[in-house]
Amino acid sequence: MPKLWNETIEEHRRAVRDTVLETTAELVAEQGLRGVTMSRIAERSGIGRATLYKYFPDVESIMAAWHERQIAGHLDELADLRGRSDTPGARLAAVLERYAFIQQQRHGHGAELSALLHRGGHAAHAEQHLRHFVRGLLAEGVQAGEVRDDVTPDELTGYCLHALAGAGELPSKAAVRRLVAVTLTGLRPQG
Amino acid sequence: MPKLWNETIEEHRRAVRDTVLETTAELVAEQGLRGVTMSRIAERSGIGRATLYKYFPDVESIMAAWHERQIAGHLDELADLRGRSDTPGARLAAVLERYAFIQQQRHGHGAELSALLHRGGHAAHAEQHLRHFVRGLLAEGVQAGEVRDDVTPDELTGYCLHALAGAGELPSKAAVRRLVAVTLTGLRPQG
Repeated sequence: MPKLWNETIEEHRRAVRDTVLETTAELVAEQGLRGVTMSRIAERSGIGRATLYKYFPDVESIMAAWHERQIAGHLDELADLRGRSDTPGARLAAVLERYAFIQQQRHGHGAELSALLHRGGHAAHAEQHLRHFVRGLLAEGVQAGEVRDDVTPDELTGYCLHALAGAGELPSKAAVRRLVAVTLTGLRPQG
Repeated sequence: MPKLWNETIEEHRRAVRDTVLETTAELVAEQGLRGVTMSRIAERSGIGRATLYKYFPDVESIMAAWHERQIAGHLDELADLRGRSDTPGARLAAVLERYAFIQQQRHGHGAELSALLHRGGHAAHAEQHLRHFVRGLLAEGVQAGEVRDDVTPDELTGYCLHALAGAGELPSKAAVRRLVAVTLTGLRPQG
């Protein structure tokens, strides 16, 4: 069955958009934020400048869209991990480890880019989503007696996310795993 | 014995400088960074504008000097606490709790002011000093068998400082104390 015309257009639009996001992220990684212009993005993406402006008004909005897609991807990945472990404790450990690795990769961005990316409302929304997700895992852990119950899951969420943000300055995967182990020790039930 | 002329001048300069720093910090707390000008600082401090400019070229440099003094005060306070506890474990707990309370107070600054204050090299220097100090306490704790030895004191320092940065979003002293307790649990020797 041939595709409907609307679907084809929609697919084409999504493909252009994806290409622009990937290309811009590549250029920013290579040259830093200041070195990237709409003209260079158009050139590298192989689309016309006029077409590019139909999709995005400026470099900042492209980076915001890219960041939004990255975050959504990370959240999906964490949700997926959740489904793959048996016990609440194993789930929590798998999700927090993955989160820590994401923090480690993210650090490559640099301070200027991080500040830009976090200006948009989407980042705040994603953080809320993440907190809610981790809080749920911690509450399950408390129910199962695998996480301490003398501190609320909400406060434990803040502890976990802040402690694991430290992964950003760690040089190796082994060091990130040690950080996750130390952080998990802090969550253990207190006798 | 009468004071030497140079000492008197030096004291006078320090007093003017201190007044300017205090006044500026007050004004920024009241009105936000954008609302504060050199003229208002001169007026509120009770010194002439021309005199003010002999001490500082702009509001940013006053805030940087104020921040530098704040940080030095905090580091002195932490060093002082260190001398007042008997065991390495008690020392570590006292210092980390104080550090967490400082993080909680600092949070009032707001993101814009924090970004400005951390632009100066003095903040990076103070952070190194702090890390060195906490690492020393942790190494003592390891020696005394009160802190885990399966992770280096350096990595544990990163864990502590990131975890306790979470105090910035906590609403009460009790919540900060719980965060410190959870963080200290993470440091315990592993059997």
